[in-house]
Amino acid sequence: MRAPIAVPTPKDPGGGYTHEQHKRNASLIYDAGQMYRLTGDADYADYAGKLMLAYADVYPSWGLHPAKKEQSPGRMFWQNLNESMWLLNVSQSYAAIKDTLTPDQRAKIEADVLRNMADFLSDGSPETFNKVHNHGTWATAAVGLTGYAIGDENYVEQALLGLDKSGEAGFLKQMDKLFSPDGYYNEGPYYQRFALMPFVVFAQAVQQNEPEREIFEKRDGILKKAIYATIQQNYGGLFFPINDAIKDKGIATRELLHGVAIAYDLTGDTGLLSVAEAQGKYVLTPESRALSEDIAAGKMTDFDYRTMRLGDGETGTEGALDIIRASTDPDDLVLVVKNTSQGLGHGHFDKLGFMVFDAGREILRDYGAARFLNIESKYGGHYLVENNAFAKQTIAHNALVVDETSHFGGDVELGNQNAPVLGTFTDTGDLKITSAEIDTAYPDVLMDRTMAMITDAAFPRAIVVDLIEAHSDNPHQYDLPFYYNGQLTETNFKITADTTVRQPLGQDNGYQYLWRVGTASAIEGLSQITWLLDRTFYSVTSSVPQNSNVIFAEIGANDPDFNLRREPAFILRTNSLNGVSIASVIEPHGEYNPTVEYTLNSHSNVKSVQHFETGGDDYILIETKDGQRVGLGVSGDMTENAAHSVSVDGAVMRWTGPYKLFHSDRHQSEGN
Amino acid sequence: MRAPIAVPTPKDPGGGYTHEQHKRNASLIYDAGQMYRLTGDADYADYAGKLMLAYADVYPSWGLHPAKKEQSPGRMFWQNLNESMWLLNVSQSYAAIKDTLTPDQRAKIEADVLRNMADFLSDGSPETFNKVHNHGTWATAAVGLTGYAIGDENYVEQALLGLDKSGEAGFLKQMDKLFSPDGYYNEGPYYQRFALMPFVVFAQAVQQNEPEREIFEKRDGILKKAIYATIQQNYGGLFFPINDAIKDKGIATRELLHGVAIAYDLTGDTGLLSVAEAQGKYVLTPESRALSEDIAAGKMTDFDYRTMRLGDGETGTEGALDIIRASTDPDDLVLVVKNTSQGLGHGHFDKLGFMVFDAGREILRDYGAARFLNIESKYGGHYLVENNAFAKQTIAHNALVVDETSHFGGDVELGNQNAPVLGTFTDTGDLKITSAEIDTAYPDVLMDRTMAMITDAAFPRAIVVDLIEAHSDNPHQYDLPFYYNGQLTETNFKITADTTVRQPLGQDNGYQYLWRVGTASAIEGLSQITWLLDRTFYSVTSSVPQNSNVIFAEIGANDPDFNLRREPAFILRTNSLNGVSIASVIEPHGEYNPTVEYTLNSHSNVKSVQHFETGGDDYILIETKDGQRVGLGVSGDMTENAAHSVSVDGAVMRWTGPYKLFHSDRHQSEGN
Repeated sequence: MRAPIAVPTPKDPGGGYTHEQHKRNASLIYDAGQMYRLTGDADYADYAGKLMLAYADVYPSWGLHPAKKEQSPGRMFWQNLNESMWLLNVSQSYAAIKDTLTPDQRAKIEADVLRNMADFLSDGSPETFNKVHNHGTWATAAVGLTGYAIGDENYVEQALLGLDKSGEAGFLKQMDKLFSPDGYYNEGPYYQRFALMPFVVFAQAVQQNEPEREIFEKRDGILKKAIYATIQQNYGGLFFPINDAIKDKGIATRELLHGVAIAYDLTGDTGLLSVAEAQGKYVLTPESRALSEDIAAGKMTDFDYRTMRLGDGETGTEGALDIIRASTDPDDLVLVVKNTSQGLGHGHFDKLGFMVFDAGREILRDYGAARFLNIESKYGGHYLVENNAFAKQTIAHNALVVDETSHFGGDVELGNQNAPVLGTFTDTGDLKITSAEIDTAYPDVLMDRTMAMITDAAFPRAIVVDLIEAHSDNPHQYDLPFYYNGQLTETNFKITADTTVRQPLGQDNGYQYLWRVGTASAIEGLSQITWLLDRTFYSVTSSVPQNSNVIFAEIGANDPDFNLRREPAFILRTNSLNGVSIASVIEPHGEYNPTVEYTLNSHSNVKSVQHFETGGDDYILIETKDGQRVGLGVSGDMTENAAHSVSVDGAVMRWTGPYKLFHSDRHQSEGN
Repeated sequence: MRAPIAVPTPKDPGGGYTHEQHKRNASLIYDAGQMYRLTGDADYADYAGKLMLAYADVYPSWGLHPAKKEQSPGRMFWQNLNESMWLLNVSQSYAAIKDTLTPDQRAKIEADVLRNMADFLSDGSPETFNKVHNHGTWATAAVGLTGYAIGDENYVEQALLGLDKSGEAGFLKQMDKLFSPDGYYNEGPYYQRFALMPFVVFAQAVQQNEPEREIFEKRDGILKKAIYATIQQNYGGLFFPINDAIKDKGIATRELLHGVAIAYDLTGDTGLLSVAEAQGKYVLTPESRALSEDIAAGKMTDFDYRTMRLGDGETGTEGALDIIRASTDPDDLVLVVKNTSQGLGHGHFDKLGFMVFDAGREILRDYGAARFLNIESKYGGHYLVENNAFAKQTIAHNALVVDETSHFGGDVELGNQNAPVLGTFTDTGDLKITSAEIDTAYPDVLMDRTMAMITDAAFPRAIVVDLIEAHSDNPHQYDLPFYYNGQLTETNFKITADTTVRQPLGQDNGYQYLWRVGTASAIEGLSQITWLLDRTFYSVTSSVPQNSNVIFAEIGANDPDFNLRREPAFILRTNSLNGVSIASVIEPHGEYNPTVEYTLNSHSNVKSVQHFETGGDDYILIETKDGQRVGLGVSGDMTENAAHSVSVDGAVMRWTGPYKLFHSDRHQSEGN
């Protein structure tokens, strides 16, 4: 507040000086308003008012921004999204301090900043304002908050019901459409976090100004559900990086600081105090202050991290994000299966893809977005060309690729129209499992995938079982990538490494960004690969068709600007006339302890994985090196009471219902 | 202690079952002995005695280990080093519990385990026992501790004075030879940590049994100095990874747990309590317990992390490790310059090399050793072939390479004979600086390097200045690598990337392990490269000869077993008829904050770096983008009172003594 005021004429794109300065000013105005509200110290109000007046002097003269973005341009910023964010902050501050201003000052700020900008963002930008999309929510929230701040009900009505107040657009429609009944946001958690901010902030204003609207009770408490769903979608404090996600975003972002504080205010759930403690910082609101006070008062309990299916789509029927956790410990093994719908323009083409997390780290990972947010020298902080060309493509994910092409041919529209069909999601403690299938990702291929987390005494820790199948009457090449994180330590085959020349793995659909670094042949239909990350070993043991190959790859070919991270993968490749089945066990094991100098169980405990099929029913048999056998039955028909049987090595394995875990003898003899 | 005892017949190498089981038993015996000492609970003594008796039953029958290592083999373990470690633990436990055993039991354990093994390690392995080397120290300490434990002064005398008790070998000789007067161990901190354990543990026994020897006072308190020197050589809790270092070893290793506890017992330095807290764990000794009690009692103060020169060699005249810290904050900017001697067989060929650390991370890094310690599938846990072939070679380091060959032609003996000649080491607060030169690394090239850390108001943080010169009358190619850690964000030139074919950078001397990933030309003698690591940007701006090239490289070519980490580097390459001078500024700057979504100062603040020379004197002029000028004078003659001058852009810059920092106008006007 001692520094001179700087309100520069708009010039730079995201990350540049004028962009950052206007963002900084919005934060200053917001914080000063909040500090005035919390302390009553007039210096804060004076400062906020002075800055608002400085904007009133110049804002009306600003036309469209010179560096306007591909999307809807702003005037202060390159895109009007930033303008909405600015107004959302400033209008709240104005509400807090307006009583300290003279009538002339109020008139000037209201006319030349608040109304001028609100008009630009509403009537002046109908394509954004009326859009059922997060940019629309920022715009409606900003305009609605302005309405409450200056006492103009017309802005509030337009914000809630759309420009024509019909209810066909606007904030309430966005509440209905943008979250699934489980509170999942269909672009994924990275954008969910971002979208959440205007929802919770404006909803809180609605609640305070018009409690009779009971906005937090609408749709069975959808906004509370959305906050909880966002929290559930983090690992190690960072969001599951599906779709266009910047990986270092997580629960400590400003949006979630507000979200958690408001949720705690609404629910009193002391588990949220654990989340607040993990966030490690606070915002200048009474709700956030209450969090810190209640943590200090010792009210904190563990947050209830859960195994859960988050249905996707307005009615929860367009796929789901399936989250399977080994325990409530947030750093324990987690499997995330992406059975969601496409997720609009920020969606990736990775149907039935998955990620595994363990020990606080990504183990089998998703690339996320190819973008350096706010870093000017990296294409101005925009999404990089490699985002569409690589990061969105199927081969960039742990998802099945047919004939080196992406799902839906890389067509977003086609993707948006076709979600996976979900199988049953079950959590019985020892067996947590999900299935899904999709026949629209490729014209003549039905893909289905069942992924389970299993606890059995044959393994010291929980393991993941993966059965992926492609059904087709035509010959195809099938590639199943595993983007492993760590240093390769062991394989059951000899790798022919590309030691003196490296070339791209393919020409198109993302393949051109992968170097081929080695090839191998699976041994008698078995591929076993072990790597080390930090202190834990991980093995993937897969039953593959005879003559399958294993390709080792690394991201970074055709990357003239050094835009991509160098990350390794192995790819199980099969050519087949009539589909493919691959059953894999993903197994965390052992310990490498460099401090005390010991290494335990650096080898996989899996001797073999076999896949048996009878009719439409499947049985995966896992044999351990010490002779234990664990089985998993998966039904072709998900009906609750249907009987199933599969012939396995001469015996017949029978069960009822969608799935059945057959424990090892050791598990049973130990009385589990 | 409830589990059944297992004393398997020796079979496996390091990392294998029998190896790990015997190590585990030694820990159990040691811990049980210590627990008996601390608690007086007879169960612990019984258990330790039972395990020792189990060994007495079988040890005499064991011949040399079937998987014996290249080095001196053991009987219980593949190398007798492990056997020394086992005896060091067990003899201490025996001393603690022997009064609880019957005379028969004592006789059996002493004859069939302690004496049997001590004889094997002393008279039976003279080449190790009499060697002035860390394996020798483990052997002498183990045998000496056995002597105290069973009351046989002969073992103690042999341990202290060598097999023939002449004093030409043995522990006291090792104390004289293995540490420099500053407490530096000439293989570097990774082996220093390891070597420290037997020194401090046996010395403590000598102190307790024969205080009249005043062992901790010998050589001006050399063992205390060695402990402190080891601590000073860590960053972020991990040792500076020079020479054959496993990177994840640091102050939390068992050796340092003992070392810090014993040092605290000897000195009462409460700064050591900070180190103990950072270690985060304790060993079962009264000294370690005292640490935890005094931390709990609030006696802890900051450890005095210092800018210091650690002289190398028995008399401190064979080079030095120069450590330059921006502040006492252990996570602040640190520059380490490796002006040491070769460091025997574990030394790397990286004369005048350096590393930079910041924000808790490696910024410009050393590869360390190519080895997966104790991981059987990685060449049995041994040093990998890539260790000699790549990790030790000069091109694997931030050190000058001439004609794509390593220093001393990669000849360890030649390296051991030739240390750098040191210039003055100075710390004046704003200027911390060191110089060294060497004319033996290459037959016809004299290399010298001056590295400084500078604080000036023209830069918000401290910066590093590097002046490296090679003097030669013959044409050579000079390569100066920078192994940067992070994602490239900006260069002042266009890179021609190897986007569709990658080939090794060279054929030999480590070059064959580098992929060339791009090339560029410096612009008018200036190369500026910026990268991002975590939340900070780093730039290296270098003044290079006209027509110099910049090569971008990545580790991982010719690596059929996926043994090497994929790490990037850029290499400044110049061909010259008569030597080369390269002046660089290494500059941490800006902040990338993905949580709050802002980016500050992502561009370097350096506009130009220029190098002026008059006679043997040098002047480096740094101009910032906002017009500030900072200069550094470096004298050819290091005499304290000699006058120097260099012509710089028409002006003459004068100073007296080895170095002079010429501050910016801003620095002076701000009254600094």
